Amino acid sequence: MRAFGGIPFRGPAGECLFSARVTAGAWRGISMNFRLIFNTMGYILWVEAGFLMLPPVVALLYGENCWLAFLLSATLCGVVGTLLHLVKPKKQQMHSRDGFMAVALSWILLSLFGAIPYMLTGVLDSYVDAVFETVSGLTTTGATILDSVETMPPSILFWRSETQWMGGMGVLVLFLALTPHLGDGAYYLMKAESPGPIKSKLVPRVGGTAKILYTIYIVLTAAEAVALRIAGMSWFDAVNHAFTTMATGGFSVRNTSIAEYQSDAITWVIVAFTFLAGINFSLLYAVVRGRIRDALRSEELRWYLLILAATIGLICVDLHVELGQGWYESVTDAAFQATTIMSTTGYATKDFTLWPTFSRCILVLLMYVGGCAGSTAGGMKISRLMLQVKSLRRELDHIIHPNRVSVITMDGQSVDERAVNSAHMFQVAYLLILMAGTLVVSLDVLGFTESFVASLTCISNVGPSLGALGPMANFAPLSWFSKLVLALIMLMGRLELMPLLVLLSPSTWRNK
Amino acid sequence: MRAFGGIPFRGPAGECLFSARVTAGAWRGISMNFRLIFNTMGYILWVEAGFLMLPPVVALLYGENCWLAFLLSATLCGVVGTLLHLVKPKKQQMHSRDGFMAVALSWILLSLFGAIPYMLTGVLDSYVDAVFETVSGLTTTGATILDSVETMPPSILFWRSETQWMGGMGVLVLFLALTPHLGDGAYYLMKAESPGPIKSKLVPRVGGTAKILYTIYIVLTAAEAVALRIAGMSWFDAVNHAFTTMATGGFSVRNTSIAEYQSDAITWVIVAFTFLAGINFSLLYAVVRGRIRDALRSEELRWYLLILAATIGLICVDLHVELGQGWYESVTDAAFQATTIMSTTGYATKDFTLWPTFSRCILVLLMYVGGCAGSTAGGMKISRLMLQVKSLRRELDHIIHPNRVSVITMDGQSVDERAVNSAHMFQVAYLLILMAGTLVVSLDVLGFTESFVASLTCISNVGPSLGALGPMANFAPLSWFSKLVLALIMLMGRLELMPLLVLLSPSTWRNK
Repeated sequence: MRAFGGIPFRGPAGECLFSARVTAGAWRGISMNFRLIFNTMGYILWVEAGFLMLPPVVALLYGENCWLAFLLSATLCGVVGTLLHLVKPKKQQMHSRDGFMAVALSWILLSLFGAIPYMLTGVLDSYVDAVFETVSGLTTTGATILDSVETMPPSILFWRSETQWMGGMGVLVLFLALTPHLGDGAYYLMKAESPGPIKSKLVPRVGGTAKILYTIYIVLTAAEAVALRIAGMSWFDAVNHAFTTMATGGFSVRNTSIAEYQSDAITWVIVAFTFLAGINFSLLYAVVRGRIRDALRSEELRWYLLILAATIGLICVDLHVELGQGWYESVTDAAFQATTIMSTTGYATKDFTLWPTFSRCILVLLMYVGGCAGSTAGGMKISRLMLQVKSLRRELDHIIHPNRVSVITMDGQSVDERAVNSAHMFQVAYLLILMAGTLVVSLDVLGFTESFVASLTCISNVGPSLGALGPMANFAPLSWFSKLVLALIMLMGRLELMPLLVLLSPSTWRNK
Repeated sequence: MRAFGGIPFRGPAGECLFSARVTAGAWRGISMNFRLIFNTMGYILWVEAGFLMLPPVVALLYGENCWLAFLLSATLCGVVGTLLHLVKPKKQQMHSRDGFMAVALSWILLSLFGAIPYMLTGVLDSYVDAVFETVSGLTTTGATILDSVETMPPSILFWRSETQWMGGMGVLVLFLALTPHLGDGAYYLMKAESPGPIKSKLVPRVGGTAKILYTIYIVLTAAEAVALRIAGMSWFDAVNHAFTTMATGGFSVRNTSIAEYQSDAITWVIVAFTFLAGINFSLLYAVVRGRIRDALRSEELRWYLLILAATIGLICVDLHVELGQGWYESVTDAAFQATTIMSTTGYATKDFTLWPTFSRCILVLLMYVGGCAGSTAGGMKISRLMLQVKSLRRELDHIIHPNRVSVITMDGQSVDERAVNSAHMFQVAYLLILMAGTLVVSLDVLGFTESFVASLTCISNVGPSLGALGPMANFAPLSWFSKLVLALIMLMGRLELMPLLVLLSPSTWRNK
């Protein structure tokens, strides 16, 4: 997911959310508003219960018997959601920290409950595997522990795709779209769940922004499903792949992912929609409103296009020269793989683990970079890297012209130093988590490349790693410990680190 | 190298060098003081000429005929140095930018001239190889392109070790030690050549500080040579290895590095001295002056000890469990490899490329971390990582307690926000260069691991990579392009990025 970050729309309506709305001295005798947090979590479980009502329909359509498992799961979700909702908050005031905590706990709960159908239908034996698969879905990572997806019941495949679609734009954003009158707390929930270094709103009301985002999301998903059907997929495959493309998820209903179809039309449809899914949705909204020129003026969009064009060009030449592929095939492969990796979707039409090292290194770099802020893509996000490069340039300028004072600008507007600092903090946390993940995975019997890229692909919510964990393989060989840690890392990556770090930070619990 | 960073010694005498001494408005009509820069470079070449006079002595002692090549090289150095020195500066005033520029250009010149003996003696055919070897020496990296060092003339081996010793503590620092009355410019030269996020002086005069550093350096080198001789090395081997240990360089006069000797005594002597070489020299100075308690209070030293102890423990258990080695052998191997990699020396007693992935991942992490600021070690430096972790912790605190204002402290003193920001900038630049290096090396026919770790080992000035570029192999198979880029990356790493980035930045040349 990753709603907005709509840098081009900052203004009176889109004030930076970092400051404001904090009562002075509020931290004295700090206590989280846990009643409000639990209450919110109750709502979120209701949303999940709603989503769990769809797979039974698929089960009935295909005449399989999994519908009961889903109905039971939905009931369980609904009951626990209701119980949580019975906790009545004493104060309606939600602080930033409460928002972070609510989002972190909600996502953990969503994952734990989303794993239940895998167990009740009996398609998985291990709850750890089920949680891994659910987290990989919700976080739109797309790494799977399933050896063969084609032998799974359609309802289970549909649920997998649905988890990605839910997680893509965000469950809390959907909740905000459905409940327009939440007050101040909506800011913090949206801030904590949505990505990008600078956050703003499209319209004054948070609920209105959430509605716009979901409308664009639904329209694009529907359009892709139709396009994929026309390109030759069955309706079932088309809907599933539309769900997982727009979410930049990458789950497929085929064992060999998009390579199964061997169709250029399907390949290019997916290139187009993964590309769109990697763009800041506020720019798509601008285009819808006819402000195409404004959208094209976005610096982040230009960098996105530039990086994509450059990497496609380099991979294309590399494949042509090293593998002797024809130019058309090389361009298609390069465009597909660069777009799907940069948007952190993670589909494959080829086993890129067998590509030349140069191309593989570029793909690994793209995993790190990720898509635009405010898109459904993961990774560091282009706007963060832009802020970093710009501040590095300023540092060099400062050495040469020590008395020159300069402010970092983006799209012609100066950027708050706090946002620049947050981008640095994000990188520090990203690298620390990436390193920790690498160490944990390396305890399994895999090479350095597998361990490192597995950790990277999880924190960036891409999906495939290289080598033995590549696009044509899966994560089943890992130990339960690695799976749990990678699931945690995926959640951290999806929620942009801070919510879960706040949850895990001793400082949060010390001053209670 | 990397002189001081002496955080515990900040005070009236050791003011932070970042501010101060910049004439207001000086950047208007900016022009580098190139006459003074060239003049300084002339001095530096004289220093190199002096060092080039020692290998002929070795050649004469061993009755080989390389002495003429060294004398010719020394003469060339001396003549060009004199020519440069004839450029008389119009103003003696040196700005920060001039210091950075002088250091960057001096090191490039040192590398180009230091490569000449390899060509004149005929031991290398390619000037690119010779420059790679010289840069690898001067930057104390220790990656070699020589297939067999044992077939080389002793004078060449001595020159290789000598380049590391020169580069370890820094040629410009030596120059400052020799010329006590340079005035303001000395600050900027020292600042540009010496490492660490916070720079201070040991004594009020820069020349005095440089003298103290070199005295400690020489005494420790001599002590190690004696210790190695007693432990069983020949005098020649002992002196060479003392040079390359104290510089945290890692060149050896044996093909199989320290594995050649199969001696526990030698192993532990080297562990002890690489450990010392990774410590901030200002702490060693404190110990010399009897302020042991002050030294032990240093937070960076504690982290250094903690990280080393933890990694030795983990590797030791891994080797014991996975390879079935005995405990004593495991501890010895773990201690040797962790210390030599963390201090960025890069010796090997075992081919750690064959170790379990977990141990290899730890070594890669240590390559990234590096030693203490103000030591002769490379890498990110522990104090920088400390600043980053502390500022991440502050960021999390800020989310939980938005109104709490907190300052980052180190050793009980508050740290300037500019130093914290510089640490972030350093990481941004480090990663960008690391990625660029990985891409370039990946063009050669190697795996992802080799390409990535080769780039990392070069920017951190460690030496060995993994796989086909591991400790028992060498960098000869790389293309000339990769070698040149890696040489540039080593120089960047050794000079802590900024001097060469200033040199390469368009902004430096635009306003002339």
